[in-house]
Amino acid sequence: MSEPARDELYFPESDRGFLEPHLPPQDGSGPSLDLPFTTLTFATSLDSSLALSPGARTVISGPQSKAMTHYLRSRHDGILVGVGTAAADDPGLNCRIAGVGGYGKPGLDGQPRPVIIDPTARWEFSEDSKLFQLCREGRGRAPWIIIATENVDPERQALLEKYGGKFITVNMLRTHTGGHRVDWQDLLVILKSKGLKSIMIEGGGQVIKSLLSPAYMSLLNSVIVTIAPTWLGEGGVVVTPDRRFDDGGNAISAARLKNVKWYPFGEDVVLCGQIKLSE
Amino acid sequence: MSEPARDELYFPESDRGFLEPHLPPQDGSGPSLDLPFTTLTFATSLDSSLALSPGARTVISGPQSKAMTHYLRSRHDGILVGVGTAAADDPGLNCRIAGVGGYGKPGLDGQPRPVIIDPTARWEFSEDSKLFQLCREGRGRAPWIIIATENVDPERQALLEKYGGKFITVNMLRTHTGGHRVDWQDLLVILKSKGLKSIMIEGGGQVIKSLLSPAYMSLLNSVIVTIAPTWLGEGGVVVTPDRRFDDGGNAISAARLKNVKWYPFGEDVVLCGQIKLSE
Repeated sequence: MSEPARDELYFPESDRGFLEPHLPPQDGSGPSLDLPFTTLTFATSLDSSLALSPGARTVISGPQSKAMTHYLRSRHDGILVGVGTAAADDPGLNCRIAGVGGYGKPGLDGQPRPVIIDPTARWEFSEDSKLFQLCREGRGRAPWIIIATENVDPERQALLEKYGGKFITVNMLRTHTGGHRVDWQDLLVILKSKGLKSIMIEGGGQVIKSLLSPAYMSLLNSVIVTIAPTWLGEGGVVVTPDRRFDDGGNAISAARLKNVKWYPFGEDVVLCGQIKLSE
Repeated sequence: MSEPARDELYFPESDRGFLEPHLPPQDGSGPSLDLPFTTLTFATSLDSSLALSPGARTVISGPQSKAMTHYLRSRHDGILVGVGTAAADDPGLNCRIAGVGGYGKPGLDGQPRPVIIDPTARWEFSEDSKLFQLCREGRGRAPWIIIATENVDPERQALLEKYGGKFITVNMLRTHTGGHRVDWQDLLVILKSKGLKSIMIEGGGQVIKSLLSPAYMSLLNSVIVTIAPTWLGEGGVVVTPDRRFDDGGNAISAARLKNVKWYPFGEDVVLCGQIKLSE
């Protein structure tokens, strides 16, 4: 671990200040006894796309924003994504900022716990998955996989547990099309009870959309969106919440931020704010 | 005209500096002999919507950005919109910045010429239309309406010409669905030949999308986008260009900006840049 890792990232102190008011308190205090400090963060194009198409790894934001994302990861106990992202991207979900555990320091300090929402346990991970490679190299933690079934492949369960990960079965709601719907309040309480005092939610589109719905948006303590000066074009994976209506049946804005700050950052802009709840 | 108009807007000198490099040169010079300086400008939500639904007037950006839009209008000879916007919004398309003609000054100095793209001459304007009210009050110019037909209602033509406006017939391309497609190069050359040395294009969605297509994006000298910290939700009027593919058939980013500057502005951010053309 004394050799510098080749993929280390640097995020200068001078850029950290602006993020501080939007991050979990350093003393570990949370918004309540039961809930973790929850940050929603993602990067989009000008046309609000996360990626060129479902499953296509798309580099949207520039190198400075990428380093920022990794810095944000170092400041949260957990990093949560949907199974679509895990299955499509084979992501590392670790933190590569110079100075955290595995990147210049022994141990795993500063490495967030990956949390993957996978109701039907469909993600086909293996020893070769990036997440487990990073575990072997001492550069990341094994994931917790949130499922709604008791029915898991015992071999995969053994692999997961070997690295210190686990399946966590939770109750989920069912949608009218037979899909699963996470009750975010329940899930966040469970994650806090298991030791995650802060969670950073990174995507994908369905997860973000669900958290921006009226039922769950109040759970978000901080929203950090990076916007890159590019249009991906039609057919992208678009982030847009469900339509909302007022009492008179008129369409209204679906979600709005308050205490807004915009920080130009390389070619991108970083938007930090909090969900504005209706009175 | 000596009474201050009640709807006058103020845009402080201190905010004008950042826009200057993105505006038509004050000496009236253009990008070429034939073409006007062309600025594309619009305001969207975080989910890239111009409005809650087609035809719904939606206030997206804050008061400071609104004043900025009117300042931009004072710096262009023409302001161009599609007929959808004209028919839905009954817009004024004038400039309400204190100190321009009709707002504290006699004459029409600083008032842009409205240009409305209406291939089939379907816009049903009348004496009551906002544009003509403003003409009567000496607060705006009559529109030029760009059509692809020779067939116009003579009464409406008379009304238009009474205020100093006119129909301008141009050749348009036809789409496979029978619609009209503006050849922007042709149209901009025509507008320049008629004295408009700079044009600000404000929307709506179809006009913006067409100008961000590979055939026309090189005509844009400046792009100014205001983004407000709100999500309108599904069903909005979304700005997204057509998908683009590389030679290998892979989807690529549809359009990208260079020389990017982001200016936080009240709750909104203003993005200024130029289209990055592929080599």
